[in-house]
Amino acid sequence: MNRDAELLLLNLLVSQRTAALATIHSGEPNASLVLFAAYPDFSAFLIHVSRLSQHTGDMLANPRVSLLISQSDLGNQDPQTLARIAIQGDAHPMPASDQDYPSAVNLYLSKFPLAQPLFSLGDFTLFRILPRKARYVAGFARAFNLTPASLRNLSKNQ
Amino acid sequence: MNRDAELLLLNLLVSQRTAALATIHSGEPNASLVLFAAYPDFSAFLIHVSRLSQHTGDMLANPRVSLLISQSDLGNQDPQTLARIAIQGDAHPMPASDQDYPSAVNLYLSKFPLAQPLFSLGDFTLFRILPRKARYVAGFARAFNLTPASLRNLSKNQ
Repeated sequence: MNRDAELLLLNLLVSQRTAALATIHSGEPNASLVLFAAYPDFSAFLIHVSRLSQHTGDMLANPRVSLLISQSDLGNQDPQTLARIAIQGDAHPMPASDQDYPSAVNLYLSKFPLAQPLFSLGDFTLFRILPRKARYVAGFARAFNLTPASLRNLSKNQ
Repeated sequence: MNRDAELLLLNLLVSQRTAALATIHSGEPNASLVLFAAYPDFSAFLIHVSRLSQHTGDMLANPRVSLLISQSDLGNQDPQTLARIAIQGDAHPMPASDQDYPSAVNLYLSKFPLAQPLFSLGDFTLFRILPRKARYVAGFARAFNLTPASLRNLSKNQ
């Protein structure tokens, strides 16, 4: 991957705020919008979801997820060439008793300060998505397969 | 649904160019970026995908999909309040021999003129996604369940 493609990917993982989360719901695919915050070493991606939402039940029943992070379509380029990464991973709920919970909350809130009030509601849960593999499309017909190790290496090149 | 929420939804269905497609791949969720064009009566959504792409094989093996259309994140509002609709449906490939194929191609190309060359390549297929139900979130804590009939009614209110 050249430096341009690398910078584009770093921008997706760090600066993009929303992603599409695909879960399995009763054997069928279910896509929903989530906000996400990447760990600095890209070892995990945090999402904060309501217990009332379908995707939350889906992840508790089956941790397999796919998280799609795409460049925002600003209408100024062929949308087929928008950069995007689909991360296949496992989503694990993070109880408030977890020793890493306070730092995860800080990480999430440093990206989404407006979400602060949701942490005092009882019905939101923080999930950590651990990537197993990823597919990065840097534009039309420019695609790369990534591993957790290559994501970690990428994090050192910021 | 009030008129504001309706206009926001019409804008998503008509003007938004990209969507996240969730398919089932070997029993696991798979999210990918697609371009889509809605039929004028919202009875179907067209996508045009490469036979080399994983989602194409997924849909041929299992037609169940979820198509998430979201407002672009322009960074100027709380991302939790971005409007989005997740459409659960069935994806059916449309052979060039189908009597509706020429009009479907026209519909798709009227939205994506740059995709014209892809129709002369042999390895792209047009799929029609027929909605079974949809969930529209017009902002934080404003959600609506929609049926194919309510989508069709909405199309009359443009």
